[in-house]
Amino acid sequence: MQHHEQITIVIFGASGDLTHRKLLPALYNQHVKGHLPSNVYIVGVSRSQLSDDDFRARMKDGVQQFAPEHFDETRWNAFAPRMRYVSADLSSADGMGAVKTALDACESDVEHRLYYLSVGPKLYAPIVQNLGTHGMAREDVGWRRLVVEKPFGIDLASAHALNDTIHAVFSESQVYRIDHYLGKETAQNILFFRFANSIFEPVWNRNAIDNVQITVAEEVDVEHRGEFYDKAGVLRDMFQNHLMQLLSLIAMEPPTSFEANALRDEKVKVLRAIRPPQESHTVRGQYIGYRDADGTAPNSKTPTFAALELYVDNWRWQGVPFYLRSGKALARKQSEIVITFRQPPHLMFAGVDPDAISPNVLSMRIQPDEGVHLTIQAKEPETTQSMHPVDLTFHYRDSFDTTTVPDSYERLLIDAITGDAALFTREDEIEAAWRIVDPIITSWETSASAPSLEFYEPGSWGPDEADELLARTGRRWRVGDLDH
Amino acid sequence: MQHHEQITIVIFGASGDLTHRKLLPALYNQHVKGHLPSNVYIVGVSRSQLSDDDFRARMKDGVQQFAPEHFDETRWNAFAPRMRYVSADLSSADGMGAVKTALDACESDVEHRLYYLSVGPKLYAPIVQNLGTHGMAREDVGWRRLVVEKPFGIDLASAHALNDTIHAVFSESQVYRIDHYLGKETAQNILFFRFANSIFEPVWNRNAIDNVQITVAEEVDVEHRGEFYDKAGVLRDMFQNHLMQLLSLIAMEPPTSFEANALRDEKVKVLRAIRPPQESHTVRGQYIGYRDADGTAPNSKTPTFAALELYVDNWRWQGVPFYLRSGKALARKQSEIVITFRQPPHLMFAGVDPDAISPNVLSMRIQPDEGVHLTIQAKEPETTQSMHPVDLTFHYRDSFDTTTVPDSYERLLIDAITGDAALFTREDEIEAAWRIVDPIITSWETSASAPSLEFYEPGSWGPDEADELLARTGRRWRVGDLDH
Repeated sequence: MQHHEQITIVIFGASGDLTHRKLLPALYNQHVKGHLPSNVYIVGVSRSQLSDDDFRARMKDGVQQFAPEHFDETRWNAFAPRMRYVSADLSSADGMGAVKTALDACESDVEHRLYYLSVGPKLYAPIVQNLGTHGMAREDVGWRRLVVEKPFGIDLASAHALNDTIHAVFSESQVYRIDHYLGKETAQNILFFRFANSIFEPVWNRNAIDNVQITVAEEVDVEHRGEFYDKAGVLRDMFQNHLMQLLSLIAMEPPTSFEANALRDEKVKVLRAIRPPQESHTVRGQYIGYRDADGTAPNSKTPTFAALELYVDNWRWQGVPFYLRSGKALARKQSEIVITFRQPPHLMFAGVDPDAISPNVLSMRIQPDEGVHLTIQAKEPETTQSMHPVDLTFHYRDSFDTTTVPDSYERLLIDAITGDAALFTREDEIEAAWRIVDPIITSWETSASAPSLEFYEPGSWGPDEADELLARTGRRWRVGDLDH
Repeated sequence: MQHHEQITIVIFGASGDLTHRKLLPALYNQHVKGHLPSNVYIVGVSRSQLSDDDFRARMKDGVQQFAPEHFDETRWNAFAPRMRYVSADLSSADGMGAVKTALDACESDVEHRLYYLSVGPKLYAPIVQNLGTHGMAREDVGWRRLVVEKPFGIDLASAHALNDTIHAVFSESQVYRIDHYLGKETAQNILFFRFANSIFEPVWNRNAIDNVQITVAEEVDVEHRGEFYDKAGVLRDMFQNHLMQLLSLIAMEPPTSFEANALRDEKVKVLRAIRPPQESHTVRGQYIGYRDADGTAPNSKTPTFAALELYVDNWRWQGVPFYLRSGKALARKQSEIVITFRQPPHLMFAGVDPDAISPNVLSMRIQPDEGVHLTIQAKEPETTQSMHPVDLTFHYRDSFDTTTVPDSYERLLIDAITGDAALFTREDEIEAAWRIVDPIITSWETSASAPSLEFYEPGSWGPDEADELLARTGRRWRVGDLDH
């Protein structure tokens, strides 16, 4: 895209929380940093009756509240006229007709359009169909791209049906499925860490690695999302997307290039190599008090916590357990990938108990305080053979001269605008992830032999069963170990 | 050795600098820490006429000056009576007879003896022979061990002759050849680093490593040692012992155990695998002003700096250059082993110049501020594909609750007393090291095609030719890189 070309970003669901908290602040920041074309339009669409100025005032509030570091009254006043608002019922073809009319009114010449589905999942299909009805996906005079927020389906069948609906109107190359975890610096840094350094790849396999742990822990509980969450549960909300993405980045083979399809081909290969877990390799939990939250059923069996033991059936990973866990109302907000290496095959040091030696541990922390920790054994001074684990560390905050790491939406919006789909999820990737999660959900909901729902205290690390999952083989969760 | 048994430490050369600065402070500290048997005697021997109390007063001064942290008047007064002094001419059998008489007078029951040769190398042979004459190496009632200071010979022939002389009196298992570099924490930590961690061994070879650099830089010039140094030069003074020791610790195969001979077998194997270097792979320098120092010849050609490119002819290291350098009057006192890994075989990142990427670098610093640095590539936040090297670091000082790292002599003396020869140099090891250094010295002194002696500014990193040695193949010295 040339910088002088016109681009229109159409946000469906413009009166919603995501637009207010994330999308507009991200677009404004990217505008301030000079990454957006000057001839950009942002057209907000939703059912609410708002004037252009009402919409701008709301968005200004969002930027001031959620991205104040770049806010500047003069800059805002220059940016605000680029925003329009259209009130429309998006479930009707007529509503989309009104959007089309409004777009035609502000666009001219060669224009590109990014459609952003920041609406409830029920509206995905009608909006896409109505875009099709009005020929709004056709790329006669510029590109048309569709950004789809999560959740993408509620199971494999619905995800597949949604892909079918989308592909009736848009080709796959026009579709950008968001997983905002992929926009996070450390998720991207996994790729750089693995493939811009030569010392890790030789130990990145079953010969050197004992187990891989991926924790995405939330401290918050279900808050006001009870109604949505009670139907979803943690597997749909976190595993199918974020945890599977992180797993595939950690486990994939080196792609030939960073090009979107080369990268996603490798990720899909990993997801397809994951063996369906035994029921005994799954743990489900619900925090005590969840059933009292607004919108949840009083006898809800929805899991707010899950832990899985997965295996990747390929040459690189055969036999290496991948332990995944995520939940709400946990001890703290912490996302971390922890790779525990094997013990040295032979300890030459007399009088050293091999079991007393900590293995090497590589931890890639995503939040808080993104960085890398590598634990090694060093000799204690003034002893002949006493060892002690020490940490080699780096933190983005300390190592880079940047005051704030940009929000992942900034990166993802710019990637969608420039047509780089590397950090978006492809059709087959989404379905491969559902193919893993679906049978677990089915087992939990229907199988008599499935593990029972375990209740855990808010502020804990989930039910004891999650610890037992590892303890069976003498292992333990290591997240948080490295805080000393 | 049982704690109640008696041990006598006989220091030949008791009026010398080493005894005053290092040996007595080390023995006193080990006494305070409770590592010496209570029934210890320290018998100082030298030609000077001193009373026991004169000797004690001198030694007290040494402890107060060089190891004040543990000094305590009461403790000293309890320790001082354990010291005796004998004045004797050690080059005569009669002199040694006087020593024997004095030892017999203070010893009783089962006594062990450690003979410490802290004298000029010319006295090594006479002392050993006189010990033999008086039957003082015989282990009828306790062990007899001989600690030999460096230098051990001035070339292969003299080292071999000295070994023969020693073995006429002592068996090899009684002999402890000091290389105080091996007592340093980081030199020992090389072994722990390599063999108590599982992640380094898989990349510790020609497949992953581009080159190894060993720098032992002294900031001081020849000072008052001109007369000795002018005959020795840097290859004898530093390479034959310290640098070869460090090289063998870095390059050796994993020993089966930490047992002295298992360890030294592997070190000898490495030294024997070193290919004699081409003349063009050697650089010799002399700092400007050296010829004006006391005791040096006005036209001296003695090298005060050397750089070597060595190759280890075995499966692990074939083709990997080991660059060694050491010198006096250099920019700063710094001893460091720097391992530069290869570039990643394939860079998947578009628009990244492969030559602009820093390879992974592992640096083991011995002094100052002992520690480990690992440089990796990380993505710069808010860029799509910009990389930046960052450091993962740890320093002993920060990681261990120890105010002072003990002097290497403390460790070595205790090892000799407890009979652990792991950190001492074995007969064949000494000779293998001379076998590498000898031909270089001969070439420099006699060959018409040898590189010429290059003069360098004091306070520099040696002559430009040392940089050119690496620049020929596009490499550079990396010590000091990691100080940012």
